[in-house]
Amino acid sequence: MIKKKESLFELQKQVDEWINRYGGGYWNPLSMFSALIEEAGELARELNCQQGNKPKKSEKENVRIDEETGDLLFALICIANYFEIDLEQQLKKSLRKFAQRDKNRYKKTR
Amino acid sequence: MIKKKESLFELQKQVDEWINRYGGGYWNPLSMFSALIEEAGELARELNCQQGNKPKKSEKENVRIDEETGDLLFALICIANYFEIDLEQQLKKSLRKFAQRDKNRYKKTR
Amino acid sequence: MIKKKESLFELQKQVDEWINRYGGGYWNPLSMFSALIEEAGELARELNCQQGNKPKKSEKENVRIDEETGDLLFALICIANYFEIDLEQQLKKSLRKFAQRDKNRYKKTR
Amino acid sequence: MIKKKESLFELQKQVDEWINRYGGGYWNPLSMFSALIEEAGELARELNCQQGNKPKKSEKENVRIDEETGDLLFALICIANYFEIDLEQQLKKSLRKFAQRDKNRYKKTR
Repeated sequence: MIKKKESLFELQKQVDEWINRYGGGYWNPLSMFSALIEEAGELARELNCQQGNKPKKSEKENVRIDEETGDLLFALICIANYFEIDLEQQLKKSLRKFAQRDKNRYKKTR
Repeated sequence: MIKKKESLFELQKQVDEWINRYGGGYWNPLSMFSALIEEAGELARELNCQQGNKPKKSEKENVRIDEETGDLLFALICIANYFEIDLEQQLKKSLRKFAQRDKNRYKKTR
Repeated sequence: MIKKKESLFELQKQVDEWINRYGGGYWNPLSMFSALIEEAGELARELNCQQGNKPKKSEKENVRIDEETGDLLFALICIANYFEIDLEQQLKKSLRKFAQRDKNRYKKTR
Repeated sequence: MIKKKESLFELQKQVDEWINRYGGGYWNPLSMFSALIEEAGELARELNCQQGNKPKKSEKENVRIDEETGDLLFALICIANYFEIDLEQQLKKSLRKFAQRDKNRYKKTR
């Protein structure tokens, strides 16, 4: 069975439903931001174990970079939903902005 | 004209094309993570101006929370792409995990 | 017995001795920065439990903001030591810079 | 002239005086934490330019890792002062904790 890929917009709606059903409503923005940094910190640890100098606690410990990216995306979508931000639209704006900003920078340095 | 919403998977592919065309290829993971924290720091500043105690530099300065969420999503997708992570799948795993973990917590406290 | 307070410079030296004795030497800078963000994430969680909307896992769980500030300072000193930065001197530069930058900002807004 | 090094405790007091004179009092804790992440983001950018894959905007741009460590220490001291935390004491607790935790880890892996 081929699973249909969902739009980012649809995923934002699913997080919204989740927040209202399980999460007890949105937190205030600086609380949601703290939660985002908590998730960023967990991603940092996993990246540092796999790519950096941090030793794993034990041989059996699995590095879970993939799991932490999901948690971080969840935290980001919560903030976006609170401010009614369309992440697809913003991502595309960022891509256009970076293309404009970086087009000279990379030519010079590489 | 109604604009078709794109899947998160499709957006990950667009970032991949962008990285190869403009960005000079993926950076190493800890460099990409540093870039993510740089974007998180810019989001922090905007949130702090609008929601917290930080004064704006001038009256004319616009708070750009929406723009910073796009930049942060870009940085996250770069890391996910590097490790070939399907963010839609991981987000759904996170939702299931949080639902399981939080279902008792919120009943007690609210 | 009155305990003599130590200089920040002396504390930087103690961290240096610690790193060479127990820590196996300094990590590379982006690994040390990831460790700093891991500690910042733990501080975020504690602040969010005490000051924000995040519920504690259980009634028995103590909020350890003080412990996390120590861990974060350790991570910062590691980076400073690696680059032979005198943190006392830099802190004083920051205080002078902020005083200059903010002296007009706060008069207007408060 | 030999400049006397000041204790971390004394530096915490100087930040406290600064906050009351120029800063308009302490912000709320999650605002101060956002400011800390803003500073961490600026440190990330400088480290990434010097040690990672991020290109500098121009040849003339100086990398200011030292300046950013001062700003980050300021942000951390603000949080510590708000909660009346003695950072020297906490740093020493962290050193003891890490020594205990890591003493087996590093023997095995190196």
